[in-house]
This record gives sequence, C-alpha cells and structure tokens, in this order.
Amino acid sequence: MKFDILTLFPGMFSGPFDESIIKRAQEKQLIDISLHNIRSWATDRHQTADDSPYGGGAGMVMKPEPLAACIESVKGDNPHSLVVITSPHGRRLTHRVAQELSSRPGLILVCGRYEGIDERIRTLYADDDISLGDFVLSGGEIAAMAIVDAITRLIPGSLGSEESARLDSFSDGLLEYPHYTRPADFNGHTVPDPLLSGNHELIRKWRRKESLRKTWILRPDLLDQVTLTGEDRKFLKEIDQEESDGE
Amino acid sequence: MKFDILTLFPGMFSGPFDESIIKRAQEKQLIDISLHNIRSWATDRHQTADDSPYGGGAGMVMKPEPLAACIESVKGDNPHSLVVITSPHGRRLTHRVAQELSSRPGLILVCGRYEGIDERIRTLYADDDISLGDFVLSGGEIAAMAIVDAITRLIPGSLGSEESARLDSFSDGLLEYPHYTRPADFNGHTVPDPLLSGNHELIRKWRRKESLRKTWILRPDLLDQVTLTGEDRKFLKEIDQEESDGE
Repeated sequence: MKFDILTLFPGMFSGPFDESIIKRAQEKQLIDISLHNIRSWATDRHQTADDSPYGGGAGMVMKPEPLAACIESVKGDNPHSLVVITSPHGRRLTHRVAQELSSRPGLILVCGRYEGIDERIRTLYADDDISLGDFVLSGGEIAAMAIVDAITRLIPGSLGSEESARLDSFSDGLLEYPHYTRPADFNGHTVPDPLLSGNHELIRKWRRKESLRKTWILRPDLLDQVTLTGEDRKFLKEIDQEESDGE
Repeated sequence: MKFDILTLFPGMFSGPFDESIIKRAQEKQLIDISLHNIRSWATDRHQTADDSPYGGGAGMVMKPEPLAACIESVKGDNPHSLVVITSPHGRRLTHRVAQELSSRPGLILVCGRYEGIDERIRTLYADDDISLGDFVLSGGEIAAMAIVDAITRLIPGSLGSEESARLDSFSDGLLEYPHYTRPADFNGHTVPDPLLSGNHELIRKWRRKESLRKTWILRPDLLDQVTLTGEDRKFLKEIDQEESDGE
C-alpha cells in the first residue's frame, strides 16, 4: 500500500514512522510512505503556501495553487490512490473505515494547517474526508499518523508473531478483556483465578464474559451492533446481576 | 501545564513536538513535556517491560512493576497531575474533554503497547482513560500526541496572532464555514460573492449560514446540542429548501 502525505511539516513524521510496526512494514515493503512538502510546490520565491481569508478575520488559509499542483503531481504517479483530506468535518475514523481504506492501492493524505485549506481544493480533489473526532488539532499531521498506523496493522504480514492472531478491541465488535501477566500477586493484587487454572474452556469463558462486561459498562452502544450467542446473553444477565449488586 | 509521557518509544515524539504550536508553547514555557522511557524502570538486566499473558494466547502484556515504578516516581514529582491511560476503552477525546483536561495542572499520559497493560495498573493508578475513537493503534503514542496538541491550543497564549481569535470547529458547537483565499478565480472556480463584497454583515451572515449548512449536511447530531437563534432557524429552513431542490 502506498501512502503519500502532503504536509507543510514533513519533519513531524520522522519519529512516529521510524518505530515498531510502521517501521517494520516499510522494511518488509508492505507499505511505502512518501512525504511531500506542499511548500515546495509554491512558485513564488518566498514559497508562500498560505494567504489571508476572503471576507476577513484572523488566521490564514492554505492557498489552492501549491496544493493543487502537489496533488496533481502525486496523483499522476499514483492514479488509483484516493485523495483523503483530514479535517474535523470528515467522517469518523473507525475500525471499519480503516478496513475499507486498507483495501485501496494507495492513499494521498492531505494535511491541513492554519484555518484550513481553500474550499475549492476539497471540492475539486477530495475523494474522502476523515476526522479523528470532535476535537481540533493544529493540523492534519497527527490524524494522518493515526490513519497510517490504524490501516498498516490491518495489512496481512504487518504484525509480527508477537502480535499476530491478536483479538483487538473492535475486531469482534466488543472491547477487549483485561490482560494480566506475571507476577500473579502484585503488591497484594492478584490475577483472577480462571486465568491461572490452565483450563482452556474456563479461560475462554472468563475472557468472553469480561469482554462483554467491559463493553456493557463502558460502551453499551457497541452491544447493539453485535450478534450475541446464547452464552453471551447468559453472561450479560449475570453481569447485570453482579454489577447491580453493587460490586 | 506539565505533560509527562510514559512510553516504550520516546523516539516517536521527536518530530511531532518539535514543530509549530507545540514547539512554540514549550519555548514560551506554557507547557512542559517530559518523556519517560518505561523500560528504564525495569530492574532486570535485559530491561524487560513485557511478558506473556496469563491464560495464554498470542501477544505480550506490559508488566506491572516497571510501569508502577515509573508512574509512582513521576507522580511523586507532580502530585497534582492526573494519570491518564490512552486506550480504545476510554471515554472519547472531544473538544469538551480537552477543555476539561486543560484546566488541570498536569497530565501523566501512559502509552500502552502490545496487547495492552496489566489490568492492575489501570485499577491502581488510572484517574482517566481516554480514547481517540473506535479504531486500534499500535500504541498509545499517537493518541498522546493528539491529546497534547488538542489541549495545548486551548491554553491562553499558545496560539500566535496568526491563529488567535479563530473560531475553530466545535468551539461554538458547529462545524466551521468554508475558507477561501486568493485567487478569486482558480481555474474557473470562483469565491462566493458575499466574501468579496466587503460588507461585514453580509459576510457574517454567509459564514453563519454555511457553518450551519456544513453541520446540517455532515453532522446533524451537533445541531441538537446548540442553542439556535431565530436567524439560525431561518437559515436552516432555507438550507433545507435549497438542498432538497437538488443542488
């Protein structure tokens, strides 16, 4: 998968893309990340990428010409890539959206800065508009990092044996069960008995029930979108009882 | 405001925190960011920070001892800081949550990796649990960057004159109106007339209406949480008409 990132701050990406899973996925050539400095597409000698907004007001707007030239050049080299703008107006990044985007040959991620980009760039070039959530960042760069990371880990082969086959939160529609590792007793706080039992069925049941409990307590909305088994419904009844008993 | 970030990958933060608003806020001493490598709190000679999960299965779990030692040390130096875990289980980061957290003297951000952290760390130390959304990242680092960025820009003085007084999306509960800058005609695509009129009242009305239109089309759920004026309701009626006329 090809990621082209269009930004005024390419230096921001040096740390985040040089570690762990994203680094390894690049080494394995599962993904290829190119950074493009929008400023280098400005044609004046000051390499101006922003200008005052029409209609007045504080702040600057990213000019259409350098962005358009940069998008057209990158799109010329990657005609099947989707142009994605990161902004708080977009549809929310979710596990499902990441899955959908991961099936594309490439993404051209346009990182806005300042007040935002000239609206005509959105109208003329954007295939998709992605938001991390209802909060404002200084620019689209951190959102682009999140998109690259969330997608990369869904590409087969990107996760090492260490992480493979893991049942992440959301992959089955529920929050993950709690994790424990050694010591069994940490300052008097012990690991739940079933996990120490060595009984696979007991462990499976405990994990499923605790995954349901986390979801029931923290994100009950997710339960509406999951197909529950008879066992799940029995667990949820027990959880309802246990939690209302004032645990 | 003090940010302490506990991570296994401190190198990830070098780029993102060395640019733009976060860089300037550090220089102005409005924020102070310290990175703590959890691994250096491991006591064995291999500096082991993870171990196999109790109950079996793929993946590794972050051990409780190094994390606990690191949190206790940092908390000792910053007793009023809030311990925040970044995980998909947490409450969602929103503009309002960022505002709430920005009033705190400090945050200790714990970045999980691998399968996650030992649940006892959450039980014993976490004051808050923040999620960027319903997707899975390789670790909490990118989420921590988003939290630091979203909060920093709410601290008075952090935004330069360039950005000050800006009406970000969500600050008034609506999505922002579209932005335009020169040229007035970009390859035949022109800037809306009111913005070129020089008439402040006309510009104000256009911006309010287009802000309502963006929100109405893309995020109608936000309109339920906003106190609408009589003018707003008139604009919404017009928008409803205009959009259903099949523009």
